[in-house]
Amino acid sequence: MGLLDRLAAGEVSALARLATYVENGDPLGIEAIERLYSQTGRALVIGITGPPGAGKSTLIDALIDAWRTRGKRVGVIAVDPTSPLSGGATLGDRIRVRERSDDPGVFMRSMASRGRKGGLAPATASMIHLLDAAGFDRIVVETVGVGQEEIDISSLTHLTVLLQIPGSGDGVQALKAGVLEMADIFVVNKADLPGAELLARELSGIAALTSTLQPAGNAGARVFRVSATKCEGIVPLVDEIERIGERVMRDPAEHAERIARAELSALITDRIRASIREQTATNPEIDRAVAAVARRRTTPRKAADLVLGSLTR
Amino acid sequence: MGLLDRLAAGEVSALARLATYVENGDPLGIEAIERLYSQTGRALVIGITGPPGAGKSTLIDALIDAWRTRGKRVGVIAVDPTSPLSGGATLGDRIRVRERSDDPGVFMRSMASRGRKGGLAPATASMIHLLDAAGFDRIVVETVGVGQEEIDISSLTHLTVLLQIPGSGDGVQALKAGVLEMADIFVVNKADLPGAELLARELSGIAALTSTLQPAGNAGARVFRVSATKCEGIVPLVDEIERIGERVMRDPAEHAERIARAELSALITDRIRASIREQTATNPEIDRAVAAVARRRTTPRKAADLVLGSLTR
Repeated sequence: MGLLDRLAAGEVSALARLATYVENGDPLGIEAIERLYSQTGRALVIGITGPPGAGKSTLIDALIDAWRTRGKRVGVIAVDPTSPLSGGATLGDRIRVRERSDDPGVFMRSMASRGRKGGLAPATASMIHLLDAAGFDRIVVETVGVGQEEIDISSLTHLTVLLQIPGSGDGVQALKAGVLEMADIFVVNKADLPGAELLARELSGIAALTSTLQPAGNAGARVFRVSATKCEGIVPLVDEIERIGERVMRDPAEHAERIARAELSALITDRIRASIREQTATNPEIDRAVAAVARRRTTPRKAADLVLGSLTR
Repeated sequence: MGLLDRLAAGEVSALARLATYVENGDPLGIEAIERLYSQTGRALVIGITGPPGAGKSTLIDALIDAWRTRGKRVGVIAVDPTSPLSGGATLGDRIRVRERSDDPGVFMRSMASRGRKGGLAPATASMIHLLDAAGFDRIVVETVGVGQEEIDISSLTHLTVLLQIPGSGDGVQALKAGVLEMADIFVVNKADLPGAELLARELSGIAALTSTLQPAGNAGARVFRVSATKCEGIVPLVDEIERIGERVMRDPAEHAERIARAELSALITDRIRASIREQTATNPEIDRAVAAVARRRTTPRKAADLVLGSLTR
């Protein structure tokens, strides 16, 4: 019995095996997604993003409990763009969400960038498809909300929850362009800490500003105050996620097209980037251009024009 | 008298005007760099990177003082990848280094990503060329050390100083892949705080590990403990930067080629990305592919193949 049949029969070990293939970019993983893709499009995909230390894992833990109570199966993908060196040395296994190995209704997997440039967004998209095809109703994609790539990853989800904690000072400032603008829900975690009120008000202001500046953006993004460790404020948050989810599912085509466009764009950019990297390493014309630029015999811009001409010839 | 002549005559207002052109990608800025590039290659370019709150600006302030004492002219480029919304709302002007408007030997400029995807690396390269041509001996490029883009920006510098503070918990972990591996000097700021010793030891371990794993990497990267606000430990750090700088200048071709390759690669990737974005917005084939993927009539990978085929036709 093949892996895909075993997946369809609900075998957790088959899912785990396929997830590893997908994570590693193994041809078997690619083939699995090619065959499973037509069965996807049922799950609600939620991005949870926020700076390190904001309590994303604890929040996700609380959300899983809430969804399990409501009979939903939950998949979690933790996307880790941090250094393999530091990650390996200090974090060990990246997932800090409580393991639920006895519950087949929960599946978790972390994906590291492993030093690769790019490529995480398409791999994450494939992992979402796998969990979707495996029948998970809610798929959470956890990212740290910094870095260029997280924007691409947010564009793979139906909605984005942005988590912040009071007193982190540079918290709001440290977010990359696009993360604030993209949030559908703002959550202030550790709401009993001093500064929570202030942060909530700041986020409300940003939500109002964003909805004015970008009518297509997160108009009406609401701010929730929770204490994830104490499980306080979780029910209203889950209700809001579900409310947005119902809106998404009423008009799934709009979101499906946006997400398909993002995945296509990530795939195409990745391929072209790989091809440029390969060319940059092997194309003698590029070596000559590099040497000329380094010796100030031509300018970077003229050299780029030359190389682009030779690439498209 | 033209701007370039006034720049050559040392007029600060001409430099400021040209910097604004370069920052905005104005054709006048591009033309200026085309004409000035042959006069570049003299400055030592130092990347200073670290998480928000690590004290980068204070450190740079102390470095400027030390270099000014040694008769060096110093340019500072603060690269700010944060959200224009949060940046505008909470940070005001990004540069926090003390202004020295009375000293023509110091020039500072911050560059924001302004919500653009990519493009910051080539613009930063141009700004480096401008300050180089304007006769600055040391050019500091400040980045937050998170995000895909900072890796590219590090590759535009001769050496990278990685700044960390004790007690930030996720400090080391939150760095993107490649940042740790790329550091030539590790600095522990706020060295009088508890945990400084531990962090310094952790960084020493990472430096040792890196030099083992990647012989071409930061072999022998040293760890310095400073207190930037108290100006403690700055002299040994500047000495180390200068020592590495002398090594760089003894064999400038190697670094010039590496930097030229990085700038060329960034320019080419940018152009191709812009062309993909344009195509994605206007190419009817892409719209058809997106719709087919969204409706699950084809897979993302098959659609990407199709689109790539049509792009290269």
